[in-house]
Amino acid sequence: MAQLTTSPSYSFTVRLRIRNVPGRLARVLAVIARHRGDPGSVDVVRSERDFKVRDLVINAHDSEHAAGILADLKKVRGVEIVHVSDRVFHLHHGGKIHVQSKVPLDNREMLSMAYTPGVARVCEAIAAQKSLTHVLTIKRNSVAIVSDGSAVLGLGNIGPEAALPVMEGKAMLFKEFGGVDAYPICLRTQDPDEIVLAVKWISTGFGGINLEDISAPRCFEIERRLKEELDVPVFHDDQHGTAIVVLAAVMNALKIVGRQLGNLKIVIAGAGAAGVAVTKILHSAGARQMIVCDRKGIIGKHRWSDLDDSKKWLAENTNPKNLSGSLDDAVKGAHLFIGVSGPGVLSVHGVKKMAKDAIVFALANPSPEIAPEAAQPYVRILATGRSDYPNQINNVLAFPGVFRGALDVNARDINEPMKLAAAKAIAGCISEHELNEEYIVPSVFHRSVSHTVAEAVSLAAIASGIARHKPGH
Amino acid sequence: MAQLTTSPSYSFTVRLRIRNVPGRLARVLAVIARHRGDPGSVDVVRSERDFKVRDLVINAHDSEHAAGILADLKKVRGVEIVHVSDRVFHLHHGGKIHVQSKVPLDNREMLSMAYTPGVARVCEAIAAQKSLTHVLTIKRNSVAIVSDGSAVLGLGNIGPEAALPVMEGKAMLFKEFGGVDAYPICLRTQDPDEIVLAVKWISTGFGGINLEDISAPRCFEIERRLKEELDVPVFHDDQHGTAIVVLAAVMNALKIVGRQLGNLKIVIAGAGAAGVAVTKILHSAGARQMIVCDRKGIIGKHRWSDLDDSKKWLAENTNPKNLSGSLDDAVKGAHLFIGVSGPGVLSVHGVKKMAKDAIVFALANPSPEIAPEAAQPYVRILATGRSDYPNQINNVLAFPGVFRGALDVNARDINEPMKLAAAKAIAGCISEHELNEEYIVPSVFHRSVSHTVAEAVSLAAIASGIARHKPGH
Repeated sequence: MAQLTTSPSYSFTVRLRIRNVPGRLARVLAVIARHRGDPGSVDVVRSERDFKVRDLVINAHDSEHAAGILADLKKVRGVEIVHVSDRVFHLHHGGKIHVQSKVPLDNREMLSMAYTPGVARVCEAIAAQKSLTHVLTIKRNSVAIVSDGSAVLGLGNIGPEAALPVMEGKAMLFKEFGGVDAYPICLRTQDPDEIVLAVKWISTGFGGINLEDISAPRCFEIERRLKEELDVPVFHDDQHGTAIVVLAAVMNALKIVGRQLGNLKIVIAGAGAAGVAVTKILHSAGARQMIVCDRKGIIGKHRWSDLDDSKKWLAENTNPKNLSGSLDDAVKGAHLFIGVSGPGVLSVHGVKKMAKDAIVFALANPSPEIAPEAAQPYVRILATGRSDYPNQINNVLAFPGVFRGALDVNARDINEPMKLAAAKAIAGCISEHELNEEYIVPSVFHRSVSHTVAEAVSLAAIASGIARHKPGH
Repeated sequence: MAQLTTSPSYSFTVRLRIRNVPGRLARVLAVIARHRGDPGSVDVVRSERDFKVRDLVINAHDSEHAAGILADLKKVRGVEIVHVSDRVFHLHHGGKIHVQSKVPLDNREMLSMAYTPGVARVCEAIAAQKSLTHVLTIKRNSVAIVSDGSAVLGLGNIGPEAALPVMEGKAMLFKEFGGVDAYPICLRTQDPDEIVLAVKWISTGFGGINLEDISAPRCFEIERRLKEELDVPVFHDDQHGTAIVVLAAVMNALKIVGRQLGNLKIVIAGAGAAGVAVTKILHSAGARQMIVCDRKGIIGKHRWSDLDDSKKWLAENTNPKNLSGSLDDAVKGAHLFIGVSGPGVLSVHGVKKMAKDAIVFALANPSPEIAPEAAQPYVRILATGRSDYPNQINNVLAFPGVFRGALDVNARDINEPMKLAAAKAIAGCISEHELNEEYIVPSVFHRSVSHTVAEAVSLAAIASGIARHKPGH
């Protein structure tokens, strides 16, 4: 498994009252060092005659680690713990997004233009021509982030309330990276029929629907039905966001190893939302030798009676030799492994059996399918979902630009050509001379990615005839 | 009827290219003056050798008036119309609100605290204790503005798309006056069962529901069922917002005329959402001699078989002498007339028959139940819904503070004591020495109103046992 590293996600601020005696702060820092904690900023809050009050930021591995550091800090003579504040909870307090007016409403003239009586003319214009909703309202730039809380991060079915902090975070990413106004809608139902109805009913004011953290196989049916029902894009990010970024990474990895997608032996571990979508996009892009494994092993026609609709598609479109067996059997001679499953499913023994110049994407998060340190000696290119290793496969490279591009041309859908265009655009953000084994996808903070993706997606929407207006109009 | 006045709601910006000859701008202004248009700012956009390009703001009565002014401007020699832009449509372009992140998400540390992996700890905390949703998410300060577009302003059933600009404007008011994050949800259904389901399903992330512009009598059932279903406040503003402000105005008017609510003869014209709610709040406050009229005349037990549930309540709780007849019959000897109906339903003849020191609230908007100029000679106190006459009865005096107060103490409901407290607080914003016939309600821009209302509403929630936490905690 991966080594324990301290992280801002277990970060706390300790307010200490420290006696003005030389070396007291050094003792505090020594305690932190002994516990291998990671000290951050050290501020002075107040100076008294005999004391200084300081705020120390400390990053820990986990809650237990944090508690251990605090227990030992309490024992230092001349140091008093005034207050401990969890920085993550502090940040989430009261929510992370808000709704703002674009113009101040602080005088009568503005009030009578933005609200009554002036607004009536705008209402009448829309009543006469519904397509003006895309021009004269927030629909032009708004996306609903819809979740039922059934498959939140790696936490499982924790319910819609507990999903809300993730959806708020997603809304922040939409704005920061795509300039999209996204609003979280966490549904108090997990019934697919009810989810479809709820989204249909609320869709008036949204120019797109981003489905999020809805468990497989329910997510496939929900997305399919909503795509039929609505005339705005419906995009399940856990499927297509992941698929787009994986395809981008595969494209760049193949440039390094000098292989073609058409005759690449690919093994995909995981047949949930991400696994199915990754397989489908690779198939669209030309991959023909794919084997998908779920918990029970290789998926194929031999397991037909055991498979739901999405896995039947996999059985029909992958595994052409109808192999059976375990994941370990499947990876023998494979050029590319893509894990979108769970921790530790790929053994070192398995990696060793892969073909020369093996490419391994171990994307389970936070604990990958194989520890990067263990896999590294036997692979040419390694990618994970984590920010603390090279080649982070992160959906944020895709979804802000994809929706930006779709909204810019008022697209009716996000279709296959738009997804392929997004993948190519992401891959193209790394120039040939920058490209290397440790840099196959751009960083999350590579600022031109979402703009490049948006342009490519807009053009693909226009070319495939589903754009309702041209960008800039 | 009211005189035609120019208004920013028919406001446009004309870009003119004007030859540099003395007196040319004066001619332009003379054209506007001849049409009785209202010129606003006159900016210079660009200066050329022989020409100046200027932007003129002109307020008109209506679209026809605007077209007439433009037609004559075109005829002025040496003046060319480059471009005409409708200021109201310009303001609404692309929507009037946006969703913002409270903190920038521009570095890896912030990303890992606000989103993965840090967010997982917050999710787990909420999964373990659902009440933390009110603390750690946007629910703490968020209200859904829900409409089905069935009764939008005075425009009728124009549908959910056309209602959206109004709901966006409402969200602006919520933020500007109450600091509440409100988001518009316009529903693609007008079926009461479906509306109840939709609101229930999306309620996870909202600390309150503001129903808006839903037609009577459907609105009564929808509100009642949602109040039963949800543990956050549900408030139909067209009913209760109006009722609160009307009660506040009545309280102050009675101080001037020196009468008591208990023996006041009151006639209410209109038995829709506002009429029913106004009657109920006046009843709660102690009024006992009320007569309500709808289009068919006085409502009473004599019309029982003809009445829906909300009007049956009126028949049982008003009109104690079981009078029948027309509105004109009803107003004879009345001290107070409250119109929440339509233009011109109250005749001058009717007003003359009212008691001495008559109080008339003619609230139909934009065209009141009686033209203020016509009523004025015969009444002591006059109020309308319009901003261009004294005593504007405007819901914005109530709803931002009411929700602010309810959210501050995480109230389960907005109940009668909270509404009465809000009315008293609004009335109390005008001191005894300020109070006069033309100043019975504070101005919309009286900045302390919503704060005062919020405090009163919070205290009433605590006193009535429906607050889940105390303010400031």
